[in-house]
Amino acid sequence: MAGDSIGRLFRITNWGESHGKAIGIVVEGCPSLIELSEKDIQKELDRRKPGQSRLTTARAEDDKVEILSGVFNGKTTGAPISMMIRNKDYNKKDYAKLSKVFRPSHADFTYFQKYRTRDAFGGGRSSARLTAGNVAAGAIAKKVLRKIEIVAYVKKINNITAEVDVEKVKAKDVESTIVRCPDSIAAARMIKLVEETKKSGDSVGGVVECVIRNVPPGLGEPLFDKLSADLAKAMMSINATKGFEIGSGFSCAEMLGSKHNDEFVMKNKKIVTKTNNSGGIQGGITNGMLVVFRVAFKPTPTISKRQKTVSTDGKVAFVEGTGRHDPCVLPRAVPVVEAMTAIVLCDHYLRSKAMKNED
Amino acid sequence: MAGDSIGRLFRITNWGESHGKAIGIVVEGCPSLIELSEKDIQKELDRRKPGQSRLTTARAEDDKVEILSGVFNGKTTGAPISMMIRNKDYNKKDYAKLSKVFRPSHADFTYFQKYRTRDAFGGGRSSARLTAGNVAAGAIAKKVLRKIEIVAYVKKINNITAEVDVEKVKAKDVESTIVRCPDSIAAARMIKLVEETKKSGDSVGGVVECVIRNVPPGLGEPLFDKLSADLAKAMMSINATKGFEIGSGFSCAEMLGSKHNDEFVMKNKKIVTKTNNSGGIQGGITNGMLVVFRVAFKPTPTISKRQKTVSTDGKVAFVEGTGRHDPCVLPRAVPVVEAMTAIVLCDHYLRSKAMKNED
Amino acid sequence: MAGDSIGRLFRITNWGESHGKAIGIVVEGCPSLIELSEKDIQKELDRRKPGQSRLTTARAEDDKVEILSGVFNGKTTGAPISMMIRNKDYNKKDYAKLSKVFRPSHADFTYFQKYRTRDAFGGGRSSARLTAGNVAAGAIAKKVLRKIEIVAYVKKINNITAEVDVEKVKAKDVESTIVRCPDSIAAARMIKLVEETKKSGDSVGGVVECVIRNVPPGLGEPLFDKLSADLAKAMMSINATKGFEIGSGFSCAEMLGSKHNDEFVMKNKKIVTKTNNSGGIQGGITNGMLVVFRVAFKPTPTISKRQKTVSTDGKVAFVEGTGRHDPCVLPRAVPVVEAMTAIVLCDHYLRSKAMKNED
Amino acid sequence: MAGDSIGRLFRITNWGESHGKAIGIVVEGCPSLIELSEKDIQKELDRRKPGQSRLTTARAEDDKVEILSGVFNGKTTGAPISMMIRNKDYNKKDYAKLSKVFRPSHADFTYFQKYRTRDAFGGGRSSARLTAGNVAAGAIAKKVLRKIEIVAYVKKINNITAEVDVEKVKAKDVESTIVRCPDSIAAARMIKLVEETKKSGDSVGGVVECVIRNVPPGLGEPLFDKLSADLAKAMMSINATKGFEIGSGFSCAEMLGSKHNDEFVMKNKKIVTKTNNSGGIQGGITNGMLVVFRVAFKPTPTISKRQKTVSTDGKVAFVEGTGRHDPCVLPRAVPVVEAMTAIVLCDHYLRSKAMKNED
Repeated sequence: MAGDSIGRLFRITNWGESHGKAIGIVVEGCPSLIELSEKDIQKELDRRKPGQSRLTTARAEDDKVEILSGVFNGKTTGAPISMMIRNKDYNKKDYAKLSKVFRPSHADFTYFQKYRTRDAFGGGRSSARLTAGNVAAGAIAKKVLRKIEIVAYVKKINNITAEVDVEKVKAKDVESTIVRCPDSIAAARMIKLVEETKKSGDSVGGVVECVIRNVPPGLGEPLFDKLSADLAKAMMSINATKGFEIGSGFSCAEMLGSKHNDEFVMKNKKIVTKTNNSGGIQGGITNGMLVVFRVAFKPTPTISKRQKTVSTDGKVAFVEGTGRHDPCVLPRAVPVVEAMTAIVLCDHYLRSKAMKNED
Repeated sequence: MAGDSIGRLFRITNWGESHGKAIGIVVEGCPSLIELSEKDIQKELDRRKPGQSRLTTARAEDDKVEILSGVFNGKTTGAPISMMIRNKDYNKKDYAKLSKVFRPSHADFTYFQKYRTRDAFGGGRSSARLTAGNVAAGAIAKKVLRKIEIVAYVKKINNITAEVDVEKVKAKDVESTIVRCPDSIAAARMIKLVEETKKSGDSVGGVVECVIRNVPPGLGEPLFDKLSADLAKAMMSINATKGFEIGSGFSCAEMLGSKHNDEFVMKNKKIVTKTNNSGGIQGGITNGMLVVFRVAFKPTPTISKRQKTVSTDGKVAFVEGTGRHDPCVLPRAVPVVEAMTAIVLCDHYLRSKAMKNED
Repeated sequence: MAGDSIGRLFRITNWGESHGKAIGIVVEGCPSLIELSEKDIQKELDRRKPGQSRLTTARAEDDKVEILSGVFNGKTTGAPISMMIRNKDYNKKDYAKLSKVFRPSHADFTYFQKYRTRDAFGGGRSSARLTAGNVAAGAIAKKVLRKIEIVAYVKKINNITAEVDVEKVKAKDVESTIVRCPDSIAAARMIKLVEETKKSGDSVGGVVECVIRNVPPGLGEPLFDKLSADLAKAMMSINATKGFEIGSGFSCAEMLGSKHNDEFVMKNKKIVTKTNNSGGIQGGITNGMLVVFRVAFKPTPTISKRQKTVSTDGKVAFVEGTGRHDPCVLPRAVPVVEAMTAIVLCDHYLRSKAMKNED
Repeated sequence: MAGDSIGRLFRITNWGESHGKAIGIVVEGCPSLIELSEKDIQKELDRRKPGQSRLTTARAEDDKVEILSGVFNGKTTGAPISMMIRNKDYNKKDYAKLSKVFRPSHADFTYFQKYRTRDAFGGGRSSARLTAGNVAAGAIAKKVLRKIEIVAYVKKINNITAEVDVEKVKAKDVESTIVRCPDSIAAARMIKLVEETKKSGDSVGGVVECVIRNVPPGLGEPLFDKLSADLAKAMMSINATKGFEIGSGFSCAEMLGSKHNDEFVMKNKKIVTKTNNSGGIQGGITNGMLVVFRVAFKPTPTISKRQKTVSTDGKVAFVEGTGRHDPCVLPRAVPVVEAMTAIVLCDHYLRSKAMKNED
């Protein structure tokens, strides 16, 4: 079974290659009568597209999406929604020489091991360009989720950590800086760091944090399809991710139970927790509090510095980036994290509707 | 869709409640003609069962497994393998008083929100007791995987971190201490800490690390069913987990690309990487190197200390553990991490067989 | 992927062998708070169990079901419902001699070809005994479906065809004869035929018809999961089935469009069709009319007459039944058809809830 | 869960509407390194496309397929294969008036009931035009299946039944007449009948028979994913189908077991059956004999004759076809039956590879 689809009820199927004719996504399970236009999709794609700021790759793709099916008179019909983005700017010359080597910490070697062939141009199927389809699908998921609000942002780049109030942070705070960090002081330092790193021919990693507000309690399907588990899978399916943590995350290891436990209290006649080490999920099911999680992204493997590696015929070889790459994937990863979050949530939202008892 | 099953080709379906009649698992997709006996299963269950050492709960379950189907003359037949463990020692009185309160950082509240009812005894379906079924299924997966070796161990408890050589660590090193930490010096300190914590009526968290050896390259199905993504989901589906990271993990955030990239080199005529920040997986597919990942476990939410909370009818209430709980889940989590790892790997191993091109 | 599960939201996983320790089923996706007891299940199992009348096999199984999980204080909890039936009367001596031959039109040969082993006792996994688990699951599905009424009956045995008014036929009419045919005149002739056939050491086939009443319009998920398609699959998964048809069925081949089309008319302010050649399903979706379909069952392959065949080592061999078999599977197939129908409908009912738009 | 996908390992996702921008299909799970070009696809599409003979609709679509992904240097890469066909000739005026009525025995009414909206143009999603995507996917499945040969043909139209030798019939015999019936005498009569029916403003139904040769034994996954069950579902998912039968089919009802059973015999050192009432499948698994099944298709619901019906606002209304429809769907259904057969077989072929034991 190929792994190009995710979701049970709200299900997306991603296709395409970095330098093929087009990339695209098919969204199944979107309820009917939801207003939807290409503009709804495009505004999310524009947050992810290359060349949007001086921090990102110079590849010139305007990533114009075309909705091919599933929408009639401006509303969804319940039929699958097929969306396509034609690839434009691909300089195959850039990559021709790369088809003979395995780039370090890319997927060149593993794809070749698996399939005994590979589309070497721009990483082919393994390129982060493929996340554009997911962002398009996420835009639809967001519309289905209505009042549920998903805000992701850059929490950390290298050793610079932002101060962010998870209760208050808003999408517009995130979009106010090109590095997508709502803490303007940290953002300024991050931007400087990324630019310097780029100049030095290197790359940097970091952490994206994501907050979900107004989540109804009851989302998540134990034992295995816990919401936290499905979020973890979705995040770790994004290119360049190395870790996922929710609520207290890895810091829980150093806490005592008496400190870590989230005390239940009444607030406005609702049961809430005083602290939120659980990150809004207990036993895999949302408790109505903020869902908060973090995702670690490695430094971009493509760098301008010359690197030693091995050629496809087992000889020593050297590679160096041509400059058309992001020195730091974090700013453009933010909308991808949001999209994958929306897709997982939407799936669980529909699942919870199906299972709702009627008494 | 309920979430009680995991896997596409090698698929397990888990059922039961902590204090119901029995718990169990159905394993579909096990190839035929694999030697299998209850002894193969029991030895893994014994590593997980309660009461195995002074560090664990006093609940007295011997967790005897019965294979009900799928095995004929000592070998698998290709039919589903159903396994059952009868529950024995359940002191319903202990829990009766708990059915009226929501225990902090347990799943009492969220299950009630989701299902408008809950089996309050021992956590019902949300109890970590249910991982026994998964361990039984994992024992079968390990037999299918033959030479692939999976070794998990306690890497950290609270602020005590073990030194472990991932290349060399063996199962017997792990089993040599009751805390399942192969670094005997750290192990001694961990045991002392857990015992003191227990005495003080509190609990501690930690980190389990897992190493997979002899993994063939080519396992993992991009885009979404990356091996790293499926491992993340499986780990985050285990009770009490708060984080997952692979290879360099969250530390990648502070590294430069030039440092983080794993250089390819030739070794014994094979292409290998000099470092292993990738954790054996690139682009979601194994590269033949060691797979190394870590899972964070929170401190047990059940503690002996008196805690404030809310009752099911919204009043202030208090709970305190009765002593029948683990002050630290880590030692018994080790076989669970191994089992879930084996289940994910086995699924991807079968998937890779199906997709193998024949040229 | 093994094929032991069916359903997307309401999902059953069947396990066991004819002469193993037990058989059973796990039901996932049953909503919470539905009243459920073993008595609800048992009454359906009793309609399927062997030895219930002089028309069926003498195998003495009382088929007592045990609910092992998923029910708390008499109501479902949303957790998987595991049910088990211990096997009792298995005369392994009867079958020992059969393990060396491939019985004609049984699955002995194909199972051996597929798995390179087989549980030869009583057909092992290929036995119709396994449908008991499905009947147990169907009993739960019927409870979820509440007012939707499913009535199946024997429409035809050999050349005797019953006259049945699909609008009026009721379960009690079906149960009024041991052959489960509501047309008492045809029933008497069928009973006589089956008894004579048994005496002559032979077996007969026939057709079961099934009617579903009070189906809400809108069930079925095109393009592939049409309700008619999913019913066809479920029916063709039952042992001994050779054909499925809905509404006009194969007779449509000889009709003109002007005759076959179901004219829409208003009746009690509702849109209905004047005729029902569609069998209640148009474009794969229910239209609110009666759903009517038929399933063909072949004559039991086990007969008392001596038959020529081939042994496992390729020699000429002979087999003859020992008398412990049904000369006609139809009467006991009726509850199986109902159960599989209920399972498919329940799945689609939950799916339609999930997709319901909220405007 | 929407039902736009079918298959577990070899999986297709169909999208589009009759009069939308385009229709298409995504094929997941195609192994790498299979030679594939648009020509391979086009030749199958040309057998299905409208306007190919005087027996079919005059809608002028050339159905040119574009492969958008998954193929590199003329070979598959293991990545999903996305294919698209732009819609050209859609005369929306024809249908505008139809958007206010529910056409008899079409899916207009049920789609509206389900989704509370519908794309009324040309049937939207419910149009048989959508089978073009499946035919494209089937062309790929056929390439994966290599030596397995699938031949479907028109067995019956109205009361004219063809004589066909299932052992010998070849694709070229089928293609030799525009009605796709390999019995040239019957074919001539069928053609005459269809033309006369068209003239009279009516339509006719019939039966397609399909033969599969060189099937390896062991395909099919009991209990539920029997090959016969999955074929039944796939066939009943095709527009206008009302019945499915395999081997002896419904005629089994009138046979005695002693006559129906297929005796095993040795032939060329292989175990074969003397007769083939089983239709090549026993217990849901192929036995290596010819697989033979039949599918009933109703007369086209669109006819030129004036028909009474109901408007969307519950008034009496009338419809009459404009002449742009097939008076008999059978000739164009033949490649669709073959495609769906290939897709099911390919899926089971990959599944059997995964489960193959290695001893």
